[in-house]
Amino acid sequence: MKKTLFFAAAMMALSASAQVVEDFKPASTNQEGKQYPMVNSQRMVRAQISAPEATSVKLDIGGVKYDMKKDANGVWTGESAPQDVGFHYYQLNIDGASVPDPGSKYYYGASRWGSGIDIPADDEEFYQVKNVPQGSINEIYYYSTVTETMRHAYVYLPAEYYAQPNKKFPVLYLQHGMGENETGWSAQGKTGIIMDNLIAAKKAVPFIIVMDNGLNARPAHPAPQPAQQGGDQGGRRRFNMGGAFQDVLIKDIIPMTEKNYRVIADPQHRAMAGLSMGGMQTHSITLANPTTFAWIGMFSGGAFNTQELENAADFKKTNKLLFMSCGEPEEARMNVTKAANDIKALGLNTHSYISPGTAHEWQTWRRSLYQFAQLLFK
Amino acid sequence: MKKTLFFAAAMMALSASAQVVEDFKPASTNQEGKQYPMVNSQRMVRAQISAPEATSVKLDIGGVKYDMKKDANGVWTGESAPQDVGFHYYQLNIDGASVPDPGSKYYYGASRWGSGIDIPADDEEFYQVKNVPQGSINEIYYYSTVTETMRHAYVYLPAEYYAQPNKKFPVLYLQHGMGENETGWSAQGKTGIIMDNLIAAKKAVPFIIVMDNGLNARPAHPAPQPAQQGGDQGGRRRFNMGGAFQDVLIKDIIPMTEKNYRVIADPQHRAMAGLSMGGMQTHSITLANPTTFAWIGMFSGGAFNTQELENAADFKKTNKLLFMSCGEPEEARMNVTKAANDIKALGLNTHSYISPGTAHEWQTWRRSLYQFAQLLFK
Repeated sequence: MKKTLFFAAAMMALSASAQVVEDFKPASTNQEGKQYPMVNSQRMVRAQISAPEATSVKLDIGGVKYDMKKDANGVWTGESAPQDVGFHYYQLNIDGASVPDPGSKYYYGASRWGSGIDIPADDEEFYQVKNVPQGSINEIYYYSTVTETMRHAYVYLPAEYYAQPNKKFPVLYLQHGMGENETGWSAQGKTGIIMDNLIAAKKAVPFIIVMDNGLNARPAHPAPQPAQQGGDQGGRRRFNMGGAFQDVLIKDIIPMTEKNYRVIADPQHRAMAGLSMGGMQTHSITLANPTTFAWIGMFSGGAFNTQELENAADFKKTNKLLFMSCGEPEEARMNVTKAANDIKALGLNTHSYISPGTAHEWQTWRRSLYQFAQLLFK
Repeated sequence: MKKTLFFAAAMMALSASAQVVEDFKPASTNQEGKQYPMVNSQRMVRAQISAPEATSVKLDIGGVKYDMKKDANGVWTGESAPQDVGFHYYQLNIDGASVPDPGSKYYYGASRWGSGIDIPADDEEFYQVKNVPQGSINEIYYYSTVTETMRHAYVYLPAEYYAQPNKKFPVLYLQHGMGENETGWSAQGKTGIIMDNLIAAKKAVPFIIVMDNGLNARPAHPAPQPAQQGGDQGGRRRFNMGGAFQDVLIKDIIPMTEKNYRVIADPQHRAMAGLSMGGMQTHSITLANPTTFAWIGMFSGGAFNTQELENAADFKKTNKLLFMSCGEPEEARMNVTKAANDIKALGLNTHSYISPGTAHEWQTWRRSLYQFAQLLFK
């Protein structure tokens, strides 16, 4: 009996360990020279940390906490289940303290600066740095008349902006999701790299991208009845979704951009897009400002519908592109393919995209930007 | 006897706690919405973290580990001794694991991405964001013929670069210290903010600043005898101090900058400066390339000496400014004041600066940049 139990336990251990392919490599998101965390070909994450006096260390990724094991030197090691390709936020838990992994670089998401890890993808070539003409991601401050503070944002300028000092460019206003900030699209989203590669391959025309903070936009002097601040019926209904950010975007960010940069300052050369919450903001702000943006993208942010567009004459007259996307498992809920087909019947240039094998996460949004950018300003 | 001991212990406890002034405020370097770490008017740092199952938590700052204490809820709190004003790297130690504090933003220094904290200073106004014409800190990649890789750097462009699309600008090449990287001068150094403020106050002329990585410059194909690669006697002697970075700077960074930006591309409009190791690199590279840089700054990087300059005819003919600085306690070792006085006798425009009350740390280097920038290109 004892022998049988031992045998069964040994078989289970063998079976469990046989499932882990030992081809782990340091993640591309690691700090320079750091070996851990690692990723294997099964897309499992292996973390490691020295914590000699700890009694419990866990790897916390994808909403699951995985127990790590201590060796004789006090070094803890443990693996996650396979993750989706692309970028994920994670942390370590050491005796009850949730902390960043000292092996990874840090990104803002889940309402904190913390660890991130990139799982290699078959299509990763589109967001890898190549020796092609390079634009830049520019960190700026500007004064907001709405918040009465200096705000912080990032501006992508394509290589041509520098090479052709008299040329003017279209602009995309591109927003992050809930719990993220203005750093998301350039850091984990790899916006600058994706755009430089697309432009070099002549798959996209050069344009400027402004990435701001869609959350910290509380006005210094809130209006008593924000619903009265204009917009059509659909726009008013959704004003609270656009929230305070609508005011900052329309009154401060767009004028600042058009003052400081060489911009073609008309609706036909102005786009707005965003992911998740940023997609919902795009939805409500573009409806509430129907003649301001001709090019619109919603990534994992739900879908426009025919009802709200049927009588939106100004919106329809202005619009050049309505792009809606989401991750494969989100489609059952978001129905972007059906929405796009329905809206096409209204005569709008509507596109949909479903990111294969990825969910509500950055790989879906990198791919969405890659698809959307190829349609913009053409 | 027992009573006396108790009284003595109580007095000691009172005396110790009386030393801590309870006016702690969240640090300016905290993550948005995070209360801890805090700093009080005595410049003590108070850290706090929830670690219910931990048996030992320490605050590790300024080379000292301070014990923190657990409350009934498993939350640990503890204070450091008073710190110098300005920026410091720190970390937490949880049951033997050294990790970033989840309350702070993260900076690269001490050869890692980790926590940083800014202690308020009487003169902090010069590095605070103001509503003045804003330049930008631009993140770029470029191809290096020396390392045969895409390298990563930051470029400060002044507001006028955008406002005056045909104007050309001088350039400062500005280097970080050992254990730091290309992000240091813009993040903890606050280069862009210091420059925007100085230029708006008309205390500095507008110029471009290129901030690169002075450490990861190993050539793809190292030359067998690097000492033969030119430079005068002093330059050859110090070639290894400039190291592989000299080649990347001269062959890749300067040509890239002069190709991609509107630059006045002559020695009279080209400066090099650096802090600590970056100052030593500046020392050796400017000596080894005596007709390349007219304006030179060494911050906490030692000093030039008359011996190496006496026969450096090309260097002396080219030079417009030799600036040397350090923190107050460093001066006994670095002697920048004496060195500056000695070198003045050679007919060079030499300046020295001693940062009051700060050591080998970022406040010294922020102030050094502030002083140096006011002398440049005038």
